[in-house]
Amino acid sequence: MADIAKTLPLKRSSVQSAHERIKQHIHRTPVLTSTTLSNLASTPQTQESLIGTPFEGQTPAHPKINFFFKCENYQHIGAFKIRGAFHALSRLSEEELSRGVVTHSSGNHAQALALAARTYGIPAHIVMPTISTPSKIAATQGYGAKVYFSGSTSDEREAVVKDVIKDTGAVLVPPYDHPDIILGQGTMALELEEQAAELVREDPTLSVHHNQKEGMNGHVNEVDSTHNSSPSRLDAVIAPIGGGGMLSGIATALHGTGTFVFGAEPSFEGADDARRGLAAGKRIPTVKTLTIADGLRTPVGEIPWTIISDKSKLRGIYAVTEEQILAAMRLVLERMKVFVEPSAVVGLAMALYDEEFRHLVEKEGGEKGWNVGVVLSGGNTTVEAIGKMFAVSEQKGERQEGKMGAQGEKVAENVAG
Amino acid sequence: MADIAKTLPLKRSSVQSAHERIKQHIHRTPVLTSTTLSNLASTPQTQESLIGTPFEGQTPAHPKINFFFKCENYQHIGAFKIRGAFHALSRLSEEELSRGVVTHSSGNHAQALALAARTYGIPAHIVMPTISTPSKIAATQGYGAKVYFSGSTSDEREAVVKDVIKDTGAVLVPPYDHPDIILGQGTMALELEEQAAELVREDPTLSVHHNQKEGMNGHVNEVDSTHNSSPSRLDAVIAPIGGGGMLSGIATALHGTGTFVFGAEPSFEGADDARRGLAAGKRIPTVKTLTIADGLRTPVGEIPWTIISDKSKLRGIYAVTEEQILAAMRLVLERMKVFVEPSAVVGLAMALYDEEFRHLVEKEGGEKGWNVGVVLSGGNTTVEAIGKMFAVSEQKGERQEGKMGAQGEKVAENVAG
Repeated sequence: MADIAKTLPLKRSSVQSAHERIKQHIHRTPVLTSTTLSNLASTPQTQESLIGTPFEGQTPAHPKINFFFKCENYQHIGAFKIRGAFHALSRLSEEELSRGVVTHSSGNHAQALALAARTYGIPAHIVMPTISTPSKIAATQGYGAKVYFSGSTSDEREAVVKDVIKDTGAVLVPPYDHPDIILGQGTMALELEEQAAELVREDPTLSVHHNQKEGMNGHVNEVDSTHNSSPSRLDAVIAPIGGGGMLSGIATALHGTGTFVFGAEPSFEGADDARRGLAAGKRIPTVKTLTIADGLRTPVGEIPWTIISDKSKLRGIYAVTEEQILAAMRLVLERMKVFVEPSAVVGLAMALYDEEFRHLVEKEGGEKGWNVGVVLSGGNTTVEAIGKMFAVSEQKGERQEGKMGAQGEKVAENVAG
Repeated sequence: MADIAKTLPLKRSSVQSAHERIKQHIHRTPVLTSTTLSNLASTPQTQESLIGTPFEGQTPAHPKINFFFKCENYQHIGAFKIRGAFHALSRLSEEELSRGVVTHSSGNHAQALALAARTYGIPAHIVMPTISTPSKIAATQGYGAKVYFSGSTSDEREAVVKDVIKDTGAVLVPPYDHPDIILGQGTMALELEEQAAELVREDPTLSVHHNQKEGMNGHVNEVDSTHNSSPSRLDAVIAPIGGGGMLSGIATALHGTGTFVFGAEPSFEGADDARRGLAAGKRIPTVKTLTIADGLRTPVGEIPWTIISDKSKLRGIYAVTEEQILAAMRLVLERMKVFVEPSAVVGLAMALYDEEFRHLVEKEGGEKGWNVGVVLSGGNTTVEAIGKMFAVSEQKGERQEGKMGAQGEKVAENVAG
């Protein structure tokens, strides 16, 4: 991989430069709005739904939230990972490219690197645990990659990678812990800004800022002076955090624009390593969790950590429960009719159910509210997996489901296409 | 409902007139293309997959099929039915409107009429069987309709409708068997034509007709002289058929344009009443089936029948199995990442798996192939329902799934956003 000492600095202009390099290879994925989900997010949760949380007994927050969804599930290979992979390859020399690339991954990064390598006409060597699902192995091979099998521990995987490098001279492309990957993933934020602006130009009422004079009580809402004054401005962008390549890329892209960046992660079995790390002032290097958000089981990488622990770049990280992830996933599937994987909806779950975030929006957004960009990061799951997720949730009595239902029934409008 | 004697004639110009009346109220739903699915449709089925069909032992067809998907799952209420409902209301007099509207439906028509009535500010009375799912009752009430309960037989439902009319003077709006409904549903075909043309203008390679000189063996492909000569022309449009309101509307809209119209229906337990009726030369007035395509359990209505039995308007109807519907649904969900209900994918299933249709496209489309518009009619299902559908298919040994898999692995590109 390109020598870290020679990569571009981690700032917005470098993300713009990355976008120029990769945009011919990637989809400019759609940005969708949803009256249904924005109305849901702008409806207070029930008192009952706060039982057992730190907010039990308090008045539920009443923020006004207006969503713009960046649909990276419609990206090539069904997830955003292709952005970083293409950018990494675009920074390699001809000589490096000729040696091919190697990585270990059982997930979306494997397919992303395989497709990018095929596009460049170079070999891709992918190390996968022997226990990987056959469909993922087949998909990676389908992009023309050579798949090598290893045991499932890090050590076993890295040993095979080392062998491949020794045999072939291939260049290692890691999944997130490298500036070129971070800059590549950040490109989605540039598109999201532009696309939200295009949507608002066509229909100004899509933005909460379309009419500064309008407020619930006729008051003019004061806008935070750090924000830009465009009517289409995004007050915040929320993205999931696993290894942190995407979130740190977005924070880099939006730094200095006045848009706050937030991270969302699962809390199950300690998967909220980024949130806990920020609280402790120290990166947590290992995590062992089986959260259903399987793309987010990874601890934050070292380079992403330098960005997300910078308060001027990242406003905060909030964690959501498995039940909240399922509830958000149901809404995206059944109401928006968009097919996503569990990892994709943690940002939405945070905006719908995290009272701390919701109180913050109520306070800072006031009656006018916030335009909130939410990244739906991927859609690589199966109908069987969905069946099992919700069957388990049904057995547990669907407690969260019941709670969500009450809020859900208030809104009947469907999503805008 | 508007007196049938006074409705517009069932022809293209009337559909255009309907579109003018309703377009402010409906979504111009997106048209999506998918390299993955077009490549799959353009790959011959395996010999093994034809075992047990009339095509067993024959060479599988090798058509070239290029899809344009009209995504009515992104329509208001999650299905196309809103088009007919708005058009029906737009044709009522002020006096009729003031009396309100009534229908019996447990499905998408109930919600469509309720939303249209709310938009017009008039009462909607919806008769639903007591056994309807609570979420559908709640959704219909959520649009402000008054729900009445009845037994589940036609007679019981119609008796309650009669009572409502007697009590309120409300005007009956049937789900499909009326010219205003047919003309309203047909409007989607006008949009599909326009949107395919817009897509091809932006990227000419999206059409099989972008370069008349290009053929697999360098031959120029002869184009049927009845077709129009625009490079964006749709050679065919396929839509599902239940009561026939949508299919007959589309056939009316496209009559005389050179685009062939086909209907697709499930074969399970005799749900292919339209196909059987055409073969027998006589409409089949009753059907009793529990096909998973629950929107298509209805026999064709009398007025739709006059259109679909007209060979100059409808080219043919083909039926697909439950397994083929599930396989098509899996592809749309997992590959296109679009959330649809089983009824929505019967047209796609027909294009992928019906050898008679595929041979026809091979013969008439030649090496260049056909641009085929496919209506994805709705997306109103639940994660639990999907879990159950595919769990049952898993228990059956996933025979069709296995067959589809072999074809599926050949293609790895993701859908264009």
